Amino acid sequence: MTAPTDLLIRNVRPLGEKATDVLLRDGRISALGANLAVPAGCAVEEGGGALLLPGLVESHTHLDKTMWGLDWYRNEVGPLLTDKIDNERAFRAASGHDAGAQSKALALAFLAQGTTRIRTHVDVDTQAGLRHLEGVLRTREALRGLLEIQIVAFPQSGLLGRPGTDELLDQALAAGADVLGGLDPCAIDNDPARSLDVLFAIAKRHDKPVDIHLHEPGAMGAFSLGLILDRTEALGLQGKVVISHGFCLGDVLPAERDALLARMAHLGVALVTSAPPSRIVPQLAACRAAGVVLAGGNDGIRDTWSPYGKPDMLERAMILGLRYNLRRDDDLLLALDCVTDAGARACGFADYGLAPGARADLVLVDAQTVAQAVVDRPVRRLVVSGGRVVARQGSLLPGLVPA
Amino acid sequence: MTAPTDLLIRNVRPLGEKATDVLLRDGRISALGANLAVPAGCAVEEGGGALLLPGLVESHTHLDKTMWGLDWYRNEVGPLLTDKIDNERAFRAASGHDAGAQSKALALAFLAQGTTRIRTHVDVDTQAGLRHLEGVLRTREALRGLLEIQIVAFPQSGLLGRPGTDELLDQALAAGADVLGGLDPCAIDNDPARSLDVLFAIAKRHDKPVDIHLHEPGAMGAFSLGLILDRTEALGLQGKVVISHGFCLGDVLPAERDALLARMAHLGVALVTSAPPSRIVPQLAACRAAGVVLAGGNDGIRDTWSPYGKPDMLERAMILGLRYNLRRDDDLLLALDCVTDAGARACGFADYGLAPGARADLVLVDAQTVAQAVVDRPVRRLVVSGGRVVARQGSLLPGLVPA
Repeated sequence: MTAPTDLLIRNVRPLGEKATDVLLRDGRISALGANLAVPAGCAVEEGGGALLLPGLVESHTHLDKTMWGLDWYRNEVGPLLTDKIDNERAFRAASGHDAGAQSKALALAFLAQGTTRIRTHVDVDTQAGLRHLEGVLRTREALRGLLEIQIVAFPQSGLLGRPGTDELLDQALAAGADVLGGLDPCAIDNDPARSLDVLFAIAKRHDKPVDIHLHEPGAMGAFSLGLILDRTEALGLQGKVVISHGFCLGDVLPAERDALLARMAHLGVALVTSAPPSRIVPQLAACRAAGVVLAGGNDGIRDTWSPYGKPDMLERAMILGLRYNLRRDDDLLLALDCVTDAGARACGFADYGLAPGARADLVLVDAQTVAQAVVDRPVRRLVVSGGRVVARQGSLLPGLVPA
Repeated sequence: MTAPTDLLIRNVRPLGEKATDVLLRDGRISALGANLAVPAGCAVEEGGGALLLPGLVESHTHLDKTMWGLDWYRNEVGPLLTDKIDNERAFRAASGHDAGAQSKALALAFLAQGTTRIRTHVDVDTQAGLRHLEGVLRTREALRGLLEIQIVAFPQSGLLGRPGTDELLDQALAAGADVLGGLDPCAIDNDPARSLDVLFAIAKRHDKPVDIHLHEPGAMGAFSLGLILDRTEALGLQGKVVISHGFCLGDVLPAERDALLARMAHLGVALVTSAPPSRIVPQLAACRAAGVVLAGGNDGIRDTWSPYGKPDMLERAMILGLRYNLRRDDDLLLALDCVTDAGARACGFADYGLAPGARADLVLVDAQTVAQAVVDRPVRRLVVSGGRVVARQGSLLPGLVPA
């Protein structure tokens, strides 16, 4: 990979504010201001008054599961969570699904649409072992410098039900996974206290953050969430725990919800949601009022779980906006926040944003306002990652990555 | 407008089934079959194995309200239904909004994306009078032969609250509106029995169908719906009444819901929904089980009510699919049905479908299956309306409509 050259982007409007130039040096934002001088040897890009967004952040996806670019997968799966888990394991065993090639294809499609940071949950189970992890580790390495990928070692089939899973998670963290994943300690593992004790012990041993898929609704989910918060506090993991989905927060009574949110805010526990239109979800307004960071993610994209999804965080922001009924322009800034700053904060991506010193990850689109960018999801006119132009008009530059 | 030439489209897959040719003569589908002979003077189009869909149906939109193609409208509107109604009337009075030009721009954008039939609700009130209706009547006339537009005369500001509205609705139907619209007889008109009596008397006098916006939730909405069904039955309007939104059906108890749905099925009353992700909606499965036709519509597109929406019925089908959690391929056929056959049945669009004798309204897209067409929303490779090619690759042919 070649080092980024210095780049001056002229006449862009950060988040729709007044026009400015942006100077990128050594892969970082060096300055914003009107009529910046062009340093010697610096390339110049005309922004033409385009809207400037920071590189987009995907806080929850499953790069390893996707069938992006492959033949259509005919979904005939049953309605239960366990139907989907069992179907996927069976499909994978029969199909020889290549998590390395698939994760790379989808990650590059994300990059072309302006996403420069991704947290991906990668299946670890006693059938596939670390095969998916190894594939996504190769993708992370192949795309280093272009795309920051955080890998969550995720026990999709549960932690306790299939003996040996704990050791595999241990190996996954040793092999390079960044975060330890978890899953429904009641509904899947049937022994919540022990499940969470085992999980948090592994995280503590490796000093790694935790990100737990909590689908459990209502009282059961709130109970599990309480157990998670107990362990976060007891083990000193403040600021290192994320709850993905957290549907229970949408359907417990407001007083219980607010007590849980207050505790989450105190412990620095963030939420990530895909804002599924068919489900009760944690309320954005309640999270913001409590000071809990709420970020957005696609969840799986075109896999055996669901046919939906595009690797486009502006489309996910639109779905968040529709789910939360965000219609005012100021409210739509919150939808964008979920796939930019809040995502970086929830996942702990460093050097993020549009300020001097941040990594130079930028997206230009033709839109008058942020609200318009969210509802229109315009072609990404220019994508810059680490100071390098990587995509124009929605397509990656040729030769960016060896095949 | 020139008469359609005969056209043979080779090698297309109707709704993803096995490949066939389609012969179009005199603006209608004449035959489907393998290796059809080319009649003398018949144009030929290579389908290349593309997926063939019938022309898409928009069952509920507001062409007159849209700001499609104009500068971004900054939405600072309050949360209540009445906030949105009052804001819109004030905006319209101040801006000189041109319902004729705007409805035409949006209708053509719909056509480019494969929609060939549209039911549009057009505001009629004591402030704007029939100005919006006149504009949309001009659009209907300008696009005749390209796009079938049904006009609903819609009392957006209520029927009883602003005296003289009933006379305006009367004039609107006399002037060419196809359908009489209504709005929340409790929540907006505050006198449901009288409101509905006045409304149904106008419809009966003109022998026109009725389409009522029913936003009222829960018990209130169910009460209003019952009053509507009483009048449908008493006045012999079976098969001529549509309920738009009908949110109440999503949040009354299942026994009451099913009793209402059974009565709707018996009276041939259809439902139209935009499947808003932020609201409780009528359940698709319950409607189908009861035999109630459920169709999909965008509702407003980029107007003072909401910034969202694209004139793309495949995107609306996707939102229906997400809202109803349709993941299996067979379930996604139902999402497409809402924007094709069910729409034609709900609105009474004649000569619809992919069978011989139907009006030759066709859409070709590159997708392996219907499910893929819904989740991908691919570029419309070819759009045919009334036997004429009107759009290619998402763009209308030049010179199709005089400016």
